[in-house]
Amino acid sequence: MDEKHLNDWFKKRKERRKQLNSNSLLNGLLLNDIAILSTSITLLESSRTDDKEIAKELIKLCLPHSGKSIRIGITGVPGVGKSTFIESFGKILLKEGKKLAILAIDPSSEFSGGSILGDKTRMEELSQMENVFIRPSPAGKTLGGVAQKTRESILLCEAAGFDVILIETVGVGQSETMVHSMVDFFLLLMLSGAGDELQGIKRGIMEMADSIVITKADGDNLQRAKLASREYQNALHLFPPNPNGWIPKSLICSSVSGENISTLNEIINSFVNHTKLNGWFEKKRHSQDKFWFHETLKELILNQFYKNEEICIEIEKIEKDINQGKISSFQAAEELFKNYLKIENGTNI
Amino acid sequence: MDEKHLNDWFKKRKERRKQLNSNSLLNGLLLNDIAILSTSITLLESSRTDDKEIAKELIKLCLPHSGKSIRIGITGVPGVGKSTFIESFGKILLKEGKKLAILAIDPSSEFSGGSILGDKTRMEELSQMENVFIRPSPAGKTLGGVAQKTRESILLCEAAGFDVILIETVGVGQSETMVHSMVDFFLLLMLSGAGDELQGIKRGIMEMADSIVITKADGDNLQRAKLASREYQNALHLFPPNPNGWIPKSLICSSVSGENISTLNEIINSFVNHTKLNGWFEKKRHSQDKFWFHETLKELILNQFYKNEEICIEIEKIEKDINQGKISSFQAAEELFKNYLKIENGTNI
Repeated sequence: MDEKHLNDWFKKRKERRKQLNSNSLLNGLLLNDIAILSTSITLLESSRTDDKEIAKELIKLCLPHSGKSIRIGITGVPGVGKSTFIESFGKILLKEGKKLAILAIDPSSEFSGGSILGDKTRMEELSQMENVFIRPSPAGKTLGGVAQKTRESILLCEAAGFDVILIETVGVGQSETMVHSMVDFFLLLMLSGAGDELQGIKRGIMEMADSIVITKADGDNLQRAKLASREYQNALHLFPPNPNGWIPKSLICSSVSGENISTLNEIINSFVNHTKLNGWFEKKRHSQDKFWFHETLKELILNQFYKNEEICIEIEKIEKDINQGKISSFQAAEELFKNYLKIENGTNI
Repeated sequence: MDEKHLNDWFKKRKERRKQLNSNSLLNGLLLNDIAILSTSITLLESSRTDDKEIAKELIKLCLPHSGKSIRIGITGVPGVGKSTFIESFGKILLKEGKKLAILAIDPSSEFSGGSILGDKTRMEELSQMENVFIRPSPAGKTLGGVAQKTRESILLCEAAGFDVILIETVGVGQSETMVHSMVDFFLLLMLSGAGDELQGIKRGIMEMADSIVITKADGDNLQRAKLASREYQNALHLFPPNPNGWIPKSLICSSVSGENISTLNEIINSFVNHTKLNGWFEKKRHSQDKFWFHETLKELILNQFYKNEEICIEIEKIEKDINQGKISSFQAAEELFKNYLKIENGTNI
């Protein structure tokens, strides 16, 4: 009986501590405390069970206070001038009295040991300004993990009163498709030139863009940039129309001369007005929520399958057979799945 | 003991019958017997267990005799003139002494009760020629089912000695992505015009095309078609390059004047030569095999999950909660998955 009491007491204490922590964090966030925002995101990224529990509780508490920002995705190959662009663009937003959060997703950060320093020095001026929060990619082993942490970081930033959330990514892997599925507006930065610069950009990204910006449109480069922008505008016009009725815009920008940076801001505002009026803004957010729910669910289910060691060995063998034309892809899948069910039933009985 | 003998006898007989059938079907296919090809595809589509067994065996036997054709996907919205185009194009192939199989995937055929008659009358001339095999979409309830049956039909057609397999689809749903993943060359048919015709084409398809053909380039339409083709050529040029080094070509075609139909044939031949030389032809086929293996496997695993009735009811409830902002997408997925594991363990013990 004593032990039961003790257990109950511990349980209650743990519960109270959890409540206290997530509640106090929430209060901090609602007071726009940037240090608390930083701590909260660190909790999200933690692998400790108790941290995770608090983060989970905190996300739940933040939900009613989230959703009010404009979420903008920015992508472009390395060298396109993303940081310089974000500096110029960010300053315009700040002048309008907006609060700006920048989440940078760098698929390589995991290996390079994080890019916090890199990001802060990259956007030197912005990082020293008030009302700005810069945070590098939450590391994760899977794209799904990074997606979850980024999506939840957005919620936290929103609860902390940030009006605009920029999600920056290097347009070379799968991360830009992921970012596209979590933002309201998707911006593609491009260089003018003969097309060699496109080498790194994955096929299909251009059709995701709500706007294309040709960067470094100054000096000797101005004419080429103008030409490129016109060509992209024609190309965008050839694409099938967006169901939301938005016609993607192509424009040139210079972070040196400041050309068009404020025009882009107007374009984004008109996009937001346009889609809020016709209901697509909300609709897209809802469908993104649903998408990530099913996406996560699928990942959990498939992981459960692929973590089975016996299965992994079989897959390797069977892929060889397929490659050598010994079995068709479909029959191979069916046979493997049958074996899996047998293994599953065997271990469960 | 008597019963055992009887059972053994039946088993052996069934085995012999199966062997006999798949073997005799294979022999028929290798003799290029079109009636037998037709019967074999019907077996593929059958829902009877014994038919399925024979089909499975037959596919296995056909594998060493398959893979030698050129697989071409053709897509375009209704009204673009696909059948007329295929008639003209097909006749050129036949003149070259090639044998042509046409598999038409019509996502609506399931509901309209099949389109056999429709297809035969659509391509009136071709359907009466020798060395031509026209077969409408194998119906299936899921895209995965249609994919499997189409892919296996390709193998059968190849074993039956067909040199070119055209897989035709209406470019409006998800079927064209599926077709793209099972062909060597992907052709997009387009109409010239202000862009209204694009309405039906899904975003992302243009970037899949190895060639774009502007149809109906004759009479009053010729100038507009030329202009459109140039515009598409520019747009294709702006896309990121194909890893196989192929630059997609845009051209105009007229089934009335016959303009460029043979040019397209040359383009396809040069594509095949190009990719066979640099190894991408084989590479793509292997990666398609692997893709369909994992795709089928995933479908089997996810079906196993989604067929659970309790889970379906929960999903409906939880989607409402997500929509109302009561829970985040990720937490919802995790909770649901936990419940699933509980249910699974409960029913298995």
